[in-house]
Amino acid sequence: MCQLLGMNCNTPTDIVFSFEGFRLRGGVTDHHADGFGIGFFEGKGIRLFHDDKPSADSPVADLVKTYQIKSKNVIAHIRKATQGQAALANTHPFVREIWGEYWLFAHNGHLKNFAPEPGNYYRPVGNTDSERAFCYILEQLRSRFSTRPDNDTLFEAVNRLTEEIRSYGLFNFMLSNGDLLFAHASTLLHYIVRKAPFGEAKLVDDDVAIDFAAVTTPDDKVAVIATLPLTVNETWSQLAVNELVMFEEGDISRRSCPQPPAFLTIEQGLAIARSVGAGN
Amino acid sequence: MCQLLGMNCNTPTDIVFSFEGFRLRGGVTDHHADGFGIGFFEGKGIRLFHDDKPSADSPVADLVKTYQIKSKNVIAHIRKATQGQAALANTHPFVREIWGEYWLFAHNGHLKNFAPEPGNYYRPVGNTDSERAFCYILEQLRSRFSTRPDNDTLFEAVNRLTEEIRSYGLFNFMLSNGDLLFAHASTLLHYIVRKAPFGEAKLVDDDVAIDFAAVTTPDDKVAVIATLPLTVNETWSQLAVNELVMFEEGDISRRSCPQPPAFLTIEQGLAIARSVGAGN
Repeated sequence: MCQLLGMNCNTPTDIVFSFEGFRLRGGVTDHHADGFGIGFFEGKGIRLFHDDKPSADSPVADLVKTYQIKSKNVIAHIRKATQGQAALANTHPFVREIWGEYWLFAHNGHLKNFAPEPGNYYRPVGNTDSERAFCYILEQLRSRFSTRPDNDTLFEAVNRLTEEIRSYGLFNFMLSNGDLLFAHASTLLHYIVRKAPFGEAKLVDDDVAIDFAAVTTPDDKVAVIATLPLTVNETWSQLAVNELVMFEEGDISRRSCPQPPAFLTIEQGLAIARSVGAGN
Repeated sequence: MCQLLGMNCNTPTDIVFSFEGFRLRGGVTDHHADGFGIGFFEGKGIRLFHDDKPSADSPVADLVKTYQIKSKNVIAHIRKATQGQAALANTHPFVREIWGEYWLFAHNGHLKNFAPEPGNYYRPVGNTDSERAFCYILEQLRSRFSTRPDNDTLFEAVNRLTEEIRSYGLFNFMLSNGDLLFAHASTLLHYIVRKAPFGEAKLVDDDVAIDFAAVTTPDDKVAVIATLPLTVNETWSQLAVNELVMFEEGDISRRSCPQPPAFLTIEQGLAIARSVGAGN
């Protein structure tokens, strides 16, 4: 299964600690060895790193570590190719411009027979169901809104499109415009909102700990979203099945969840992913 | 003045030798210290590196060197900001998707009062005249052609748009879809087509030489395009003022040049750039 990592903050923050644990899942502590990608917003600009080498030993991933880019919104993806070959054009996150903003998208799952008509505004370059879904979302948003709508309207529109697309299969995704970050779970997605008082965190995947109190200010708020929890000594929350959440300034600002909420265990989630050959 | 570097080949080639000389112009042998960017096509995918640090001491540029990415089409740009602040969103090359292909664009010059209406398909994210010109070109192409036209029609369309835009000022640019590379000179743009028999080349900006015969096959064809010649012991050709050239498979396949062709000396070209505050 692919894995997703996202971060949404109220102040530019470096993601190195989380990314270091996450990237080990690409080839060392887990098997997602068909490349990886990470996109950072810096102001309205985007810094995007893609690699078709496993993230655990990618020089591009090394750069991400040494460069310590600070960003308010980050989306990363480790790929286990199931749809489309392991080519750069199929590596997440994908980026497009809409309403004069760059938007990033990464997907973990499998959409069966999802083949919308080529869009008027957005067309896939590669051949993944993921990029098709991203282009479809933007196509529908752009067709409906000629400029960016307010956040309530936008959340509702993304929610409706998500309901439509997830009827085709597994649709765990993250989507960001550098301001908002949407996260949707079909199966597994966990998150944590770190804020004062900050404590120490220790990675699941490596013998590394960090004292967030030493690298933050009391006003900082940092939401980290990942397929599986990244740290062992913090309490991660889980998105319910088919829940869409919007993060803004480091915390949840809107959410839509079927009632009553249902949660999968990690074992159940991984079993579903295996059974449908989920990847991308 | 900003500087441009492009490469178009018939086989994936690494640009490290040329880039090493070029990048020294960002902060060491010349002054273009407001960031740099380089975009590589790999198949239909794009690998894009932007940095707002001077290219001479950028860790991103170091990665480009160590990673030795092989590509058939590359566009690089060292920036001296004149329009728009030195932010990532203003760093060339810019990328957009059109007709299911990624297109890259970089510009050196200054377009006075070029302010087209926000497009239906493409809108700038940053605030440079360069990104406005790129979005305008794509907007016009996409409005006219719903799928990519044949190369003759495409060349003619780009040529007509170039004539229109250069009436606003200096418009040295490179544009590529990973297959074709367009280069246009308002003032200075030089190129060389390397093919068998390959010889040795020595950089202008550094005490480095390469024997291309050792790193190529007899069928290779590599066109390198740069604001100023990069090597001292090869014969570079110059684009005429207002000449548009299309490179394909490592050589020129189409060109359009006002008759009789006029050429500026390097001193004249640099003086014009200074007089209008050319950059981007």
